[in-house]
Amino acid sequence: MRIGCIGGRAWLVTAEGQGVDIAAASGGTLPGDPQALYEKWDDVCAWARDVPADSYAPVDPATFELPVPRPRQVFAIGANYRAHAAEAGVEPPEQPVIFTKFPSCLTGPNDAVAIRHARVDWEVELVVVMGREARDIRAADAWDHVAGLSVGQDISERSIQRLGPMPQFSMAKSLPGFGPVGPVVVTPDEFDDPDDLGLGCAVNGVTMQQSRTGDFIFSVGALVEYISHLMPMYPGDLIFTGTPEGVGATRKPPIFLKPGDVLTTWVDGIGTLTNPITEEQSQ
Amino acid sequence: MRIGCIGGRAWLVTAEGQGVDIAAASGGTLPGDPQALYEKWDDVCAWARDVPADSYAPVDPATFELPVPRPRQVFAIGANYRAHAAEAGVEPPEQPVIFTKFPSCLTGPNDAVAIRHARVDWEVELVVVMGREARDIRAADAWDHVAGLSVGQDISERSIQRLGPMPQFSMAKSLPGFGPVGPVVVTPDEFDDPDDLGLGCAVNGVTMQQSRTGDFIFSVGALVEYISHLMPMYPGDLIFTGTPEGVGATRKPPIFLKPGDVLTTWVDGIGTLTNPITEEQSQ
Repeated sequence: MRIGCIGGRAWLVTAEGQGVDIAAASGGTLPGDPQALYEKWDDVCAWARDVPADSYAPVDPATFELPVPRPRQVFAIGANYRAHAAEAGVEPPEQPVIFTKFPSCLTGPNDAVAIRHARVDWEVELVVVMGREARDIRAADAWDHVAGLSVGQDISERSIQRLGPMPQFSMAKSLPGFGPVGPVVVTPDEFDDPDDLGLGCAVNGVTMQQSRTGDFIFSVGALVEYISHLMPMYPGDLIFTGTPEGVGATRKPPIFLKPGDVLTTWVDGIGTLTNPITEEQSQ
Repeated sequence: MRIGCIGGRAWLVTAEGQGVDIAAASGGTLPGDPQALYEKWDDVCAWARDVPADSYAPVDPATFELPVPRPRQVFAIGANYRAHAAEAGVEPPEQPVIFTKFPSCLTGPNDAVAIRHARVDWEVELVVVMGREARDIRAADAWDHVAGLSVGQDISERSIQRLGPMPQFSMAKSLPGFGPVGPVVVTPDEFDDPDDLGLGCAVNGVTMQQSRTGDFIFSVGALVEYISHLMPMYPGDLIFTGTPEGVGATRKPPIFLKPGDVLTTWVDGIGTLTNPITEEQSQ
């Protein structure tokens, strides 16, 4: 099952470009608001099993918007691939390193990202969307609490990240537009192995990152176990699961995003984000 | 002007225990939702100037709830008092050190805080509530963008804070109930000098922290200038402005909160939070 957002409303869509407006097709029993959908996730799943084939109409993937516009909590994981930890010069962590992105930085799969800084970097990430409240969940039970997976870009401004005496991850990664997510949320059962997905990103068509989530230091299950023991996770919460090697800041010489670039970001079996980089207009 | 929340609705209240339901008294032209109030802050201020004295009815301060239930962004400042930086063993920072608290941790001025960890500490803080969108604001203009001030507790679990290779401030400070705020939001014009307010907290009546915001390393104006240059600040956003010396973790021996304690937290001219500490029930 694949969920997208079109015109501010949640749609059940297919990989072949067909879709159903969920609130309309369910006679209003399910929410149109794509964020509220995850509060009724079990109902959504039950309803989706019986949608008549003739309810579907063509949808244009270029119109997909941010599928999770207002999560209550956005968890983001640092150094979750060994090769990225190595390029960043840090030891693989013994527990997950967690920071946050403000929900206000999230943006759509086809939206422009306006920047004003010189050291803006890319980070392809698999994004987990929670489908049930999770508290003290074991890793083996974690997938039962996940609604689906999406593609994310954890865009990061490297100067702000290193301002002052401790890492300013939350700020450097929460500037407006620094969290593209989409194009759709795909349920785990759609994948042969949701624990081993290819992912990558490219700038102007040149591949910059390419890896597999099978290289995670902490799997999705391990992350849900760890976080849910620290605090409750709510339906619609996101986990940005960390980025593999290939970021721009550690290249020699470093490469950063600049206005005019086009950043494409994908996870196999989910889809591709296409975010043009533009220059922020002064106010 | 003082704003409180009673029964989920915004009230204009007085220090003498009188109040007006804002949505009802404005004939529905102003929002009842206390968070939405800050989206219409100029209208609220204009309306409040002409409220007839006979509109007020007695209110019970024990019924005040969290006055800012769903801010889009919660900024929190580390090491913003020299004496606290010293007790924490860090140099006074040259730029503000910013972390975040999840809005999901915010709780009311009289609510119990249920804990499951052994190293839960107090941090009294002045909380700034934004009243206008702020982007690239100079310090001298900052107060024009502030709706008011409130009392906050930046409750912190010191074991989680130190898990792993980098500080886990956002997690350690965002457990459920770890952000009491209230009892009211008070406009800056109500203070002789909003840049120099006495504040403190006590555990079971024993004063643990006592200082003045005049000892800030970064004033409210400097913080708004710095943050608003990094990213837009939205109406209803919060700044937890940092805590003075006297936390429990650096005492010899350390002292932490335990079930049965009562934590009281105050800022002169605003009011007092009274939060009983209870034991989290296992699920």
